[in-house]
Amino acid sequence: MPYFDAASSAPLHPVARQALVASLDEGWADPARLYREGRRARLLLDAAREAAADAVGCRADELVFTPSGTRAVHAGIAGALAGRRRAGRHLIVSAAEHSSVLHSAAAHEAGGGTVTEVPVDRGGAADPEAYAAALREDTALACLQSANHEVGTEQPVAEVAAACRAAGVPLLVDAAQSLPWGPVDGDWSLLTGSAHKWGGPAGVGLLVVRKGVRFAAQGPVDERESGRAAGFENIPAIVAAAASLRAVRAEAAREGARLRELTERIRARVPGCVPDVEVVGDPVRRLPHLVTFSCLYVDGETLLHELDRAGFSVSSGSSCTSSTLTPSHVLKAMGVLSEGNVRVSLPVGTEAAEVERFLDVLPGAVREVREKLGAPVAAEARAEGDSLVLDAVGKRCPIPVIELAKVIGHVPVGGTVTVLADDEAARLDIPAWCEMRGQEYVGERPADHGSAYVVRRSS
Amino acid sequence: MPYFDAASSAPLHPVARQALVASLDEGWADPARLYREGRRARLLLDAAREAAADAVGCRADELVFTPSGTRAVHAGIAGALAGRRRAGRHLIVSAAEHSSVLHSAAAHEAGGGTVTEVPVDRGGAADPEAYAAALREDTALACLQSANHEVGTEQPVAEVAAACRAAGVPLLVDAAQSLPWGPVDGDWSLLTGSAHKWGGPAGVGLLVVRKGVRFAAQGPVDERESGRAAGFENIPAIVAAAASLRAVRAEAAREGARLRELTERIRARVPGCVPDVEVVGDPVRRLPHLVTFSCLYVDGETLLHELDRAGFSVSSGSSCTSSTLTPSHVLKAMGVLSEGNVRVSLPVGTEAAEVERFLDVLPGAVREVREKLGAPVAAEARAEGDSLVLDAVGKRCPIPVIELAKVIGHVPVGGTVTVLADDEAARLDIPAWCEMRGQEYVGERPADHGSAYVVRRSS
Repeated sequence: MPYFDAASSAPLHPVARQALVASLDEGWADPARLYREGRRARLLLDAAREAAADAVGCRADELVFTPSGTRAVHAGIAGALAGRRRAGRHLIVSAAEHSSVLHSAAAHEAGGGTVTEVPVDRGGAADPEAYAAALREDTALACLQSANHEVGTEQPVAEVAAACRAAGVPLLVDAAQSLPWGPVDGDWSLLTGSAHKWGGPAGVGLLVVRKGVRFAAQGPVDERESGRAAGFENIPAIVAAAASLRAVRAEAAREGARLRELTERIRARVPGCVPDVEVVGDPVRRLPHLVTFSCLYVDGETLLHELDRAGFSVSSGSSCTSSTLTPSHVLKAMGVLSEGNVRVSLPVGTEAAEVERFLDVLPGAVREVREKLGAPVAAEARAEGDSLVLDAVGKRCPIPVIELAKVIGHVPVGGTVTVLADDEAARLDIPAWCEMRGQEYVGERPADHGSAYVVRRSS
Repeated sequence: MPYFDAASSAPLHPVARQALVASLDEGWADPARLYREGRRARLLLDAAREAAADAVGCRADELVFTPSGTRAVHAGIAGALAGRRRAGRHLIVSAAEHSSVLHSAAAHEAGGGTVTEVPVDRGGAADPEAYAAALREDTALACLQSANHEVGTEQPVAEVAAACRAAGVPLLVDAAQSLPWGPVDGDWSLLTGSAHKWGGPAGVGLLVVRKGVRFAAQGPVDERESGRAAGFENIPAIVAAAASLRAVRAEAAREGARLRELTERIRARVPGCVPDVEVVGDPVRRLPHLVTFSCLYVDGETLLHELDRAGFSVSSGSSCTSSTLTPSHVLKAMGVLSEGNVRVSLPVGTEAAEVERFLDVLPGAVREVREKLGAPVAAEARAEGDSLVLDAVGKRCPIPVIELAKVIGHVPVGGTVTVLADDEAARLDIPAWCEMRGQEYVGERPADHGSAYVVRRSS
């Protein structure tokens, strides 16, 4: 039963399990106490901090353990912004950051700060020049992920860090996805990570603040972890996190090359075995274990169910039918197709045979979903001369695109189809469909319910 | 090697260990995902929530898991204050609360809120009438611990909750110390707890917000745990926390009675075997496993070292020689002796023989510390008629009190000794010494360095 969603959470690494169980008997006491149980706990904590700092490439006294990667991001951004309050209240983030960064930015904005969101290109990468251009006199902090969590694209951290350094602005790097594969290059100022992404246990994040970076921890005072992460330290989990980071790093070069070859198979072969697919993300500058593609005329969540039934656990950035009703902000920022989105992220140790089986199963699963969705198409198409109006109001992604594809042949070349739709995903997926199909996307205008998207038939 | 500091952190309960190890293989995936690993994790999380809610006495949807008890307190107070922002910004706490509550109050005050600190009596208990009197039109929240963490005194939660309810003000109960022994009585609105205090693992706190209580979670938005506790859930630890709470509750009545008898032995026999001792905290309305006493002319930290060498791990509320240089705020609020303070908190399973051995070892350890401290007394005492001025500036607790005790016989009955001291603990310990010794404490006035404390010889 292959689990292909390591980017959400990796299965516990055997070294993590061993370290966790071994330190349960030594690491439960308060490391601030001076009696023997406290001293033992303190030794474990200090050793774990040294090991983690070594893997990150920082000094031990620059690194604190937080209860999660999310908390590391929240605390890191809030503390860095407060520490640079005098410089100003301007924050720069990329449009493809993890939600914990974007939610921190939203909270900063709600509190009176200003935020610049630097766009990403169609491959998911931010442009260092755009970062440099966004830097202002009052910029307190810039944030950039080391690699994208949905499409795997590596970001130009070193270049952006250099631009920030030149402007005297600290750069916070969310390294959650890349940390298992190696340290983050460049002259960054703050860094965050999350243990359960590298096979460590849940409950451990890390926050690095380089010496000399102004930092003012927010929230009530607490003496733990240099005042930067309130609450009793979870030492057995911290020990397991540090030990497993060291273990995955020892295998990173070999395992990274192996998994890169497996994800390359998916990148190369999916477009051949599944019609109307777009593989997204940078094909070269990318994480070794992660590949993402979107399938036209497919609802991502239904496809996930099909794949789950076939024994494959994967994730999707298209949540058309889930509670949020909005497509992935990453795919949206890239301007690529969001419907039928599948993210495959292989855990360490994944075997080639499992990937081959996935490639065998995928075409049938997509076909099945498309057949199911093909049935309910019953849009009312009104011809008006050379143009057609398609009423898809109230219909969810990917139905509006499916209906568009069905009627485009009903107008002559040069004629238009106007799709009325109120599903947010249509804004992304109709232009993406036009690009994939070589049709002309004319534009969008407000309509009575939702928007009217105009497409001109080119061929 | 007996460990007598369960109130700091309890050794991992066997049930917690078993549940933690058992759920490592099932509980590592993201419970928000719909594939089988996610569904399994979700089932574990839901079952743990039901079990914990059952033990607390609340609905499962009123309880969220936080990364620690401290985080539960911080989030609970901040969320309740923000939820009641319209009512006003007045917060009530007792003077004997845990530092996480008092630090939250300080943060609230720094942010423009107002705080009333309700005093506690010499036994450590808050007065329900004082709480009722502190309630104002603009009171947003009141906080009261269920039992004190340093002296074990149970607080009148039900009475205070009733007074708050009558005024329409929510009461938050920090139940960290009492939760292993039973649910909290009374009509409280919010409750917090910490798993490592009951033998659960570190990394798990709980926050209960009763239905109908206005609550606005603070910090960046996060969808986990009903939006009240950001970050990936630590499911194996949560499962272990819930299982061990259930286990300790099953033994609570029997084990509580047994430990109560053991702490009663310490309460009754310490004053007989150690001279100049004050046992503090309520002798009846108290936690079963905790007893605290203070030894005149003793430095708490040195005594802890002696006891550690003899194999006993205990804690102290007097940190005269530690980094903070201030005596315990709890002992200060109670107005009792802080010097030579020792807190004994017995973990579940402590044997009578261990307590007997502690009672055998204690008198010698105290004597040794007193002998060591007796040596450096070299204060300059200047006679001025019937009065004496003792210059103890620059000397740390318990030296000023030791010097006072040595020279009181040098003035006639009715004469005074004025102690010049700049150690904060003197303000607490000189009046406490007067009360223990039947001498008259006249008062305190500012001096060139620190304060001048005037004592009149009565006998």
